[in-house]
Amino acid sequence: MKIRAAFLSAFLISLILIFPGCSKNRTPAAPTAGQPAAADPLPSWNDGPAKRVILDFVKSTTDKNNAKFVAPEDRIATFDQDGTTWVEQPMYSQILFAFDRVAALAPQHPEWKTKMPFKAILAGDKEAMAKFNLKDLEVIFASTSTGMTTEAFGPIVKDWMATAKHPRFDKPYPQMVYQPMLEVMKYLRDNGYRTYIVTGGGQDFVRSYAQAVYGIPPEQIIGSALDTQYQYNKEGQGILMRDPKLLLNNNGAGKAEDIYLFIGKHPKAAFGNTEGDREMLEYAQANGGASLEMLVLHDDPTREYAYGPATGLPDTKVGTFSQALYDEAKAKGWTVISMKNDWKQIFAW
Amino acid sequence: MKIRAAFLSAFLISLILIFPGCSKNRTPAAPTAGQPAAADPLPSWNDGPAKRVILDFVKSTTDKNNAKFVAPEDRIATFDQDGTTWVEQPMYSQILFAFDRVAALAPQHPEWKTKMPFKAILAGDKEAMAKFNLKDLEVIFASTSTGMTTEAFGPIVKDWMATAKHPRFDKPYPQMVYQPMLEVMKYLRDNGYRTYIVTGGGQDFVRSYAQAVYGIPPEQIIGSALDTQYQYNKEGQGILMRDPKLLLNNNGAGKAEDIYLFIGKHPKAAFGNTEGDREMLEYAQANGGASLEMLVLHDDPTREYAYGPATGLPDTKVGTFSQALYDEAKAKGWTVISMKNDWKQIFAW
Repeated sequence: MKIRAAFLSAFLISLILIFPGCSKNRTPAAPTAGQPAAADPLPSWNDGPAKRVILDFVKSTTDKNNAKFVAPEDRIATFDQDGTTWVEQPMYSQILFAFDRVAALAPQHPEWKTKMPFKAILAGDKEAMAKFNLKDLEVIFASTSTGMTTEAFGPIVKDWMATAKHPRFDKPYPQMVYQPMLEVMKYLRDNGYRTYIVTGGGQDFVRSYAQAVYGIPPEQIIGSALDTQYQYNKEGQGILMRDPKLLLNNNGAGKAEDIYLFIGKHPKAAFGNTEGDREMLEYAQANGGASLEMLVLHDDPTREYAYGPATGLPDTKVGTFSQALYDEAKAKGWTVISMKNDWKQIFAW
Repeated sequence: MKIRAAFLSAFLISLILIFPGCSKNRTPAAPTAGQPAAADPLPSWNDGPAKRVILDFVKSTTDKNNAKFVAPEDRIATFDQDGTTWVEQPMYSQILFAFDRVAALAPQHPEWKTKMPFKAILAGDKEAMAKFNLKDLEVIFASTSTGMTTEAFGPIVKDWMATAKHPRFDKPYPQMVYQPMLEVMKYLRDNGYRTYIVTGGGQDFVRSYAQAVYGIPPEQIIGSALDTQYQYNKEGQGILMRDPKLLLNNNGAGKAEDIYLFIGKHPKAAFGNTEGDREMLEYAQANGGASLEMLVLHDDPTREYAYGPATGLPDTKVGTFSQALYDEAKAKGWTVISMKNDWKQIFAW
């Protein structure tokens, strides 16, 4: 069985990184001209099978006279984050964040200058960084994101989100969100669905910006979670310390298990883009009745990225969409979203 | 540090039981005559300091011009269950449930007739049952509430809730809820608060009836939780199996930690009745700004029960409200609810 309370490695195994081979100077795609009529809830989507399946799903599940009607209390939609609602290339934002934290904290740790893995980050030694193993990443995460109160962590992430820029597109991360997915989230919410982010990334990390970026409150963010430890501060007040110990590894089977843990129900709609989302989509479909399962295929190297076995392009190790997952999607009637063909516009800018 | 993923014993340690010394024949208290005016949101409460503190809290935290105003997204109220929102004497309902499951499953386990601890339950040997240790309870729980799918468990609890009766009051458990607490929950919800049950009891157990009993949906029930394991059934569909392994021990410090895990925020109002609720109340108060902390004192042996050090009456081991907790409440300005004096009516019947 899956280990639920392992050290950070179980979480970090999904964060193995590949470094940017892309240029920072490439010009971002301009927004498409000519916005559709205001009545269209999904204006950034091209007319096509993916858009139609979303419209049909919402229409049928909110119509009391339709056999696929879903009661309001069961309207739950879950979204993976990295690669599904925002860019996951060339590496997960949370890894970039941890590297930036090493730089920010370095003055308090003079020994890092000569100590790996910190030394490589501080020297900007990309060759050495590309060789980081799980143990290195564990050390980096433990040194930069634990051993502080839960109250202290959120503002650090918020500050980073406001200033750090994507290495290729040179935009702050909140602008790396896919506009078509924001539209789907809003459309679902406007029709009584509760939207959850269900991410392999850190729960606290995502919670610190999700309200601003997705309009989703903290209690609807389910992610990989550290254990916390209740203690008293000097004033005798109860505080929670972030332990370097993983409580929930919210990836793969963990996504189905944690959706049940947090919500107690199957989702009715589930969106993902990698192997780590397979069980979440299966779990949505296993409930019987109407359900919507969608996978984002990254096949647009011009406007975003193209990678993974299902594209016939080299697998980058970040966000693997294997041929096997592609085949399962086809066999089970899940919809594969082609970023290239289905999305008229990818980013809001 | 607290063990988060131990075997069931960590959970069961709070479930050590004392057997009924009370009579089933005692006449339940009749509802009080003369209902107050409809405008009163808390008609089952006597006018007094406890009622006033609730009314004042809601009034001040929902008034934009009051310094204690709480933004709607932060209006979170957490309620312990056993002894706070319903009767916990003479033993926790979930223990009674487990014993009844032994009887129901006995035909499939002929060996139980001669095997402890099952033998004692099946023979109704109260003396032997009173001596059960944690290991016995672990065996009973593992044999009756795990090794099945999550889908299978809920309906079993629902059936039991509809038929099992409280040993003294001879009413089904859903009727053992405290009417004054139902009124507080509704009053808070009517004022934009989200009400959560935060229980040391089993999360799935409480979720199976909480909507019907409290008007609270599954995702607002935080409880002690088993690990689950994602598997495929014969039809190849994803299912979750209930493992005999505790993932969350939602008691004491665990309550503060799990409130943060599930909600990501401090509660603004917290209601409890035992040592196991101490950290939840502290955590509500530690946030600064307005908060409401209340502890139910069981001091009414005629209409309900009276027990624990703070009453000067013998401690029954179920739901300990120690003198130390009482002193902390007084020192920190928490309100102790006297069931005898503050509640005009305890049960709806």
